[in-house]
Amino acid sequence: MANDFDGMLPRTFIGCEAGYEESSIVLFGAPFDGTVTFRPGSRFAPSAMRADSFGLETYSPYQELCLENCAIHDAGDLDLPFGNPAKALEIIRGFTQRVVRDGKTPLMLGGEHLVTYPAVQSVFAKYPELCVLHFDAHTDLRDIYCGERLSHACVLRRVWELLGDGRIWQLGIRSGTREEFSWAAQGHTALYQYDLSGLDAAATQIGTRPVYITLDLDVLDPSAFPGTGTPEAGGVGFKELLRAIIALRPLNVVAADVVELSPHYDASGISTATACKAVREMGILLHRCSQGAGRRPA
Amino acid sequence: MANDFDGMLPRTFIGCEAGYEESSIVLFGAPFDGTVTFRPGSRFAPSAMRADSFGLETYSPYQELCLENCAIHDAGDLDLPFGNPAKALEIIRGFTQRVVRDGKTPLMLGGEHLVTYPAVQSVFAKYPELCVLHFDAHTDLRDIYCGERLSHACVLRRVWELLGDGRIWQLGIRSGTREEFSWAAQGHTALYQYDLSGLDAAATQIGTRPVYITLDLDVLDPSAFPGTGTPEAGGVGFKELLRAIIALRPLNVVAADVVELSPHYDASGISTATACKAVREMGILLHRCSQGAGRRPA
Amino acid sequence: MANDFDGMLPRTFIGCEAGYEESSIVLFGAPFDGTVTFRPGSRFAPSAMRADSFGLETYSPYQELCLENCAIHDAGDLDLPFGNPAKALEIIRGFTQRVVRDGKTPLMLGGEHLVTYPAVQSVFAKYPELCVLHFDAHTDLRDIYCGERLSHACVLRRVWELLGDGRIWQLGIRSGTREEFSWAAQGHTALYQYDLSGLDAAATQIGTRPVYITLDLDVLDPSAFPGTGTPEAGGVGFKELLRAIIALRPLNVVAADVVELSPHYDASGISTATACKAVREMGILLHRCSQGAGRRPA
Amino acid sequence: MANDFDGMLPRTFIGCEAGYEESSIVLFGAPFDGTVTFRPGSRFAPSAMRADSFGLETYSPYQELCLENCAIHDAGDLDLPFGNPAKALEIIRGFTQRVVRDGKTPLMLGGEHLVTYPAVQSVFAKYPELCVLHFDAHTDLRDIYCGERLSHACVLRRVWELLGDGRIWQLGIRSGTREEFSWAAQGHTALYQYDLSGLDAAATQIGTRPVYITLDLDVLDPSAFPGTGTPEAGGVGFKELLRAIIALRPLNVVAADVVELSPHYDASGISTATACKAVREMGILLHRCSQGAGRRPA
Amino acid sequence: MANDFDGMLPRTFIGCEAGYEESSIVLFGAPFDGTVTFRPGSRFAPSAMRADSFGLETYSPYQELCLENCAIHDAGDLDLPFGNPAKALEIIRGFTQRVVRDGKTPLMLGGEHLVTYPAVQSVFAKYPELCVLHFDAHTDLRDIYCGERLSHACVLRRVWELLGDGRIWQLGIRSGTREEFSWAAQGHTALYQYDLSGLDAAATQIGTRPVYITLDLDVLDPSAFPGTGTPEAGGVGFKELLRAIIALRPLNVVAADVVELSPHYDASGISTATACKAVREMGILLHRCSQGAGRRPA
Amino acid sequence: MANDFDGMLPRTFIGCEAGYEESSIVLFGAPFDGTVTFRPGSRFAPSAMRADSFGLETYSPYQELCLENCAIHDAGDLDLPFGNPAKALEIIRGFTQRVVRDGKTPLMLGGEHLVTYPAVQSVFAKYPELCVLHFDAHTDLRDIYCGERLSHACVLRRVWELLGDGRIWQLGIRSGTREEFSWAAQGHTALYQYDLSGLDAAATQIGTRPVYITLDLDVLDPSAFPGTGTPEAGGVGFKELLRAIIALRPLNVVAADVVELSPHYDASGISTATACKAVREMGILLHRCSQGAGRRPA
Repeated sequence: MANDFDGMLPRTFIGCEAGYEESSIVLFGAPFDGTVTFRPGSRFAPSAMRADSFGLETYSPYQELCLENCAIHDAGDLDLPFGNPAKALEIIRGFTQRVVRDGKTPLMLGGEHLVTYPAVQSVFAKYPELCVLHFDAHTDLRDIYCGERLSHACVLRRVWELLGDGRIWQLGIRSGTREEFSWAAQGHTALYQYDLSGLDAAATQIGTRPVYITLDLDVLDPSAFPGTGTPEAGGVGFKELLRAIIALRPLNVVAADVVELSPHYDASGISTATACKAVREMGILLHRCSQGAGRRPA
Repeated sequence: MANDFDGMLPRTFIGCEAGYEESSIVLFGAPFDGTVTFRPGSRFAPSAMRADSFGLETYSPYQELCLENCAIHDAGDLDLPFGNPAKALEIIRGFTQRVVRDGKTPLMLGGEHLVTYPAVQSVFAKYPELCVLHFDAHTDLRDIYCGERLSHACVLRRVWELLGDGRIWQLGIRSGTREEFSWAAQGHTALYQYDLSGLDAAATQIGTRPVYITLDLDVLDPSAFPGTGTPEAGGVGFKELLRAIIALRPLNVVAADVVELSPHYDASGISTATACKAVREMGILLHRCSQGAGRRPA
Repeated sequence: MANDFDGMLPRTFIGCEAGYEESSIVLFGAPFDGTVTFRPGSRFAPSAMRADSFGLETYSPYQELCLENCAIHDAGDLDLPFGNPAKALEIIRGFTQRVVRDGKTPLMLGGEHLVTYPAVQSVFAKYPELCVLHFDAHTDLRDIYCGERLSHACVLRRVWELLGDGRIWQLGIRSGTREEFSWAAQGHTALYQYDLSGLDAAATQIGTRPVYITLDLDVLDPSAFPGTGTPEAGGVGFKELLRAIIALRPLNVVAADVVELSPHYDASGISTATACKAVREMGILLHRCSQGAGRRPA
Repeated sequence: MANDFDGMLPRTFIGCEAGYEESSIVLFGAPFDGTVTFRPGSRFAPSAMRADSFGLETYSPYQELCLENCAIHDAGDLDLPFGNPAKALEIIRGFTQRVVRDGKTPLMLGGEHLVTYPAVQSVFAKYPELCVLHFDAHTDLRDIYCGERLSHACVLRRVWELLGDGRIWQLGIRSGTREEFSWAAQGHTALYQYDLSGLDAAATQIGTRPVYITLDLDVLDPSAFPGTGTPEAGGVGFKELLRAIIALRPLNVVAADVVELSPHYDASGISTATACKAVREMGILLHRCSQGAGRRPA
Repeated sequence: MANDFDGMLPRTFIGCEAGYEESSIVLFGAPFDGTVTFRPGSRFAPSAMRADSFGLETYSPYQELCLENCAIHDAGDLDLPFGNPAKALEIIRGFTQRVVRDGKTPLMLGGEHLVTYPAVQSVFAKYPELCVLHFDAHTDLRDIYCGERLSHACVLRRVWELLGDGRIWQLGIRSGTREEFSWAAQGHTALYQYDLSGLDAAATQIGTRPVYITLDLDVLDPSAFPGTGTPEAGGVGFKELLRAIIALRPLNVVAADVVELSPHYDASGISTATACKAVREMGILLHRCSQGAGRRPA
Repeated sequence: MANDFDGMLPRTFIGCEAGYEESSIVLFGAPFDGTVTFRPGSRFAPSAMRADSFGLETYSPYQELCLENCAIHDAGDLDLPFGNPAKALEIIRGFTQRVVRDGKTPLMLGGEHLVTYPAVQSVFAKYPELCVLHFDAHTDLRDIYCGERLSHACVLRRVWELLGDGRIWQLGIRSGTREEFSWAAQGHTALYQYDLSGLDAAATQIGTRPVYITLDLDVLDPSAFPGTGTPEAGGVGFKELLRAIIALRPLNVVAADVVELSPHYDASGISTATACKAVREMGILLHRCSQGAGRRPA
């Protein structure tokens, strides 16, 4: 990853220049958006984030830590085929498995939300008690969408099939079908509408269990995050999201992803800048958790 | 309106596929922006909303109802001449009159704000007790603007000439001349500045009288709604607007319009998406009101 | 398709208001872009073209004919699933088959280039002598791309499998792998590089056989057509393309498509305007051909 | 117009800092677009051109002259009412009259094309032998459009009513109704289609008569000039237009306008930059003509 | 500054048409962005603000005053060299000195934040007790940045060298290095993070001393202000900023600047519109202060 | 440069994955735009090109060669300070020197045009007979610009000081001051205006001498290349440029650069795509030259 010469700009996400061996966290991109139904383009997100991360300080005044000090390796982007979701998911599953097997924490940059499913599969294989904390505007709980089971609109349903009832907390939700809301309400997931106020309850219920955080950035209001496939008015502000991320510190976070930036839809670049800041804070959070600040036995 | 073949996408606003006869609400576009002084383009709004409405669920978790179940007919867009405001207004007046005469509730998509005037004329002809609830950043109370009485900047003044004192409530206002604010303060309209907190008082005062809602989307903050002709910082958020729409349920809403989206000014598309969501919620509100949830005798 | 009321704007492509029965040409959209590898978004093309067609005159000074006089029915857009190319193609095949069976000429608006394959299948079923005239920047002759046989990059190869050697003429080609160029050079297709100068030779060789025209708009230079998924510098100008379309009049054109507009990538709207003009000229051409100006027995 | 202090940037179009008295050419803006039927926004053109003119050299290598040496006064922009075309035209007529009366050459920046009509009226009042040379994509020869006689689509027809047959040359035309082309062909105007090759014939026929040049920038191909209200593919390149402007030197050009830049539709800014360069070359041309290089007795 | 003719649009910021002599406030542009490290373009801000100010009312309902009544002279934009920060700063220093010497209040429109330094130098020369109130997302307290001491990232550090400890209040700060935050915390500046809640304390501590307000508009959240060089999520809303400006009335404000709009990064124009509104409110504030509402002896 | 894992996308310009040692050509970025006077942003060019190069085939049908087979190493981007041109140039000079010293051919991606100067210095040090072939819209021959000698507007003048008369050929030039054109005409450079027709004469005169090619992409017409700092209408088409590049094969090209892409000014991405294609063809050209196809003894 390092350049062959000194004096060159790094090619990684800013502050993520640790080598793989020395790293405790592995950041990687999953540039896939093949099942998107409205506006595609999240395939360009990892590359855009890496480029614009250089407009960001590596120091977080919120968490009082520098990304450079978090031992993060940026492994680059997976080479994923379009038009064949099953094969793309297999590749993501394989890479996540390797990271987890090597005792490192995966931090995946999507791509559309479907990429979460194979990552959860591999993390779940190591942590059978795994819980999932889901930030999103959308329920993503359909069983089948447009005839497909492997769709961004079904991803949390697929995750539920793996984990079962009582393992998924959904925050910020403000869009879905009547059937999805009803299905969740039958106890399959803990679904909190509109804002992130369910976080404390979620944290208490999760307790010391290992947790996977999946952050669909469209949980943010479109004003703060216009560059996404399905903008849904009425979301949370960035400060609200930031407070939530920081509040996760006591949890045993073992993996995370940040998905659904579609950078071409926002020529102003604020969506990419905001996504970069979310990734910085998530990376620092994962470091704190991996350092035992929040880590409890798996 | 229906396509000649099965398996085709509808050409209506999503979920508004009822036939005219069976409908209780008639959605139609009034693509006119001929008197705009700063940035024109709201003529493209109805067409843009219809296209992007397909990025939206038809189910509203806020009102727990589906747009499909609201008996809404999408009649298409009126063919209006540019450069001749008087003739354009006549056409709008005529169509609204027909809708009202047929016992249906009009839901008009602008276009600039001047289109509200002829629609109010036709609704007022049926409901002499008509009140108007006006969401906007701007007072729109000038008597004459640039020498014209038929101008977007004069529309509420024209409406007042029709209805008289004590019939107009204005919410979210944050821009106007000193004279406009003074004129309103003489008791001609009830003008609430900056936010929507005057809504409860307005609802109480309106009581059971029939009410026309005119929603100028620039009442929203430019962050939430950049795609408009005269963005005015310091507006309300979408959640605030949404709460207000839902709070109108007890009222006897007999007509509504949603105006001033200028879609070309927002390439990110969030303004159109937000307008679509506002239309969905407004359509469901009108359905509830027409179903007697809020309907009282005219 | 007609509106329920007079005085409304049509919902069709401008000038294509003929009813299905009376029509001789059927225009329809195939909004699918699921196998695109670089920049997706052509799914939005048919809807964008329909809306912006109203900036166009229906009269062509080039062909001295009005689109209104061409008996074209706009059937709307097919409802196609994302994430499942095979199923989407099946639907396109079915609809084209019906149009052809009813003795009408199909004019399909893509979508990505893969949509051409099922349309050719249905047209070929009726016209076993079918030839294909292919305008494009790209060879599209890969056998497999990213592991998939049903890919936009393989579409002409699939068409070749159907038709065999000596039936395909490719014009304007300026991008492909070494293998694709070699394969074509083995006599499988007649591939003309860079410009449209091969058209005369192609027309002579095609003679009176029925011909399907597939117009990938990226054959145009990106300066003239920026709104496409894979802009490839060094293309032809619009005048050059226009001359080519008009030069096709003596041929027996039995079907056509216009593909690969990705409207969101060009906020200036010139790509959509240009696509609309190409569709107008193509529609008039098909009319001339169907009227026997160019029609010879199938 | 001059600033009160040295060391400030000029507020004029670059190189047009002459005072009114000492000037021989008067540049002014007519920011009106009230009758536009497709995409409005040319009201913003004069201001955008003035700002971006600073990206241009004042020296023209084509004409080997500097704009500073052309004695051009930039009088600013007229304050024109929207929604009342008649009044706006009256103001333009009045200002042009004053410029002409003071023995100076008007160089007007539109705005939409309708602004040409009142300017021609005032120039014609001084030069009864006036001819008009018209560069455009569109015929603009309708008698009535959308019920209006004062419309951008009728402007050359209005000019014809003033000047009569044999006084108008139209170049680059590629859009209009069948009726407009027929009407022109009856000898009312000399209409040359598609390119500027009719220029030599026009110049010969005009001879020493005074001529008004109206340059609708949409005569350029949309690739060169995307920022316009009604982009029409198949236009001329900038070099072609430039050669035409320079070829006008032998004529007795007594006034000119440059219209139909709609700058907000081209975020890349190339349309405004191109318009600025056209204005520079036109200004230098007018200077040469006013200096007698081309000037013959009126 | 005035035009030579009546009936022309002013070339100043709206409502700032006072002559220099009669003015008490002098608005001027400092279009320099030569040391920007991420996204440049604030050089275009003064010109963009002047143009778009015409979308704004001159009357402020917040402060119940019209900009026309504030005796503001718009002096235009300084002509500043790129590639030589030292020389550019010298010019700004000189002009500000003249304004201050003439007993008028400077209101400078940036440009990047570095332009604040020379303006403060000149104001400080007159008011040795000068305090600085700094609204910003960034600390701007580096001693050296990329090897340079004259950098936008060092501007408040340079100001501190001039004024010393206890004279600078920083509000809304949410980005910087660990070292910058530590350095501030040593008592060099009063740094308030994230929001503007430190304003009351600041006002109390400043008391009657003369104060310079420097408003870096990126203190606003990127949702409200996307058009800036280094968007930093988690900022304040416009209403919050507006309340802060108005709350400054009791202070003895002797100069102000508004910096870091980069208009080309926001094609929707809301950033420029918002900047214009901030300038209007700031101008009215300065007027109130200069009128003695808040003015106390220097 | 290689990733630590298989199955990841490369982080280089497409097809430039050779290691430094095995390479014969070294591609690197010089992201500097600190002296730009109109529209900055070329600092983002190398990163944008690298990302969008994946929309390009590596095979060139024009030169019938694949970029993979050209032994090109992508060394990444130099870390250059803003606000200090002298220091930035020193770093570029140093890196180029190393590449040249190691017997490899430098292929530099700008940045603004000033970056050419230090690269030429280092190449000249090795090849005292060095000639320069300059494609550009602008003369770039000022001695001093805005008081600075190290400016993008002076770069060819600085190069001339190094090389002397008769060593510089300038093609496509269409903008400059009268003084620059005169100075060139005194025999200092061979300046060909407007198009590339001077290329043959240039090639003959250069003969077997080593040549440095500097390609300012604004030599292209703005229609083909809108994303640049100073768009200048009337340029060459891409095909014309391509023919010129290929025609250079017989020359002894020892270094090249491609400068002045400013990607943020072209949201459609065609400028970046076009720049990538130019780089591909230039890389293949350099390979041919370095292979002796064109190489003659230095």
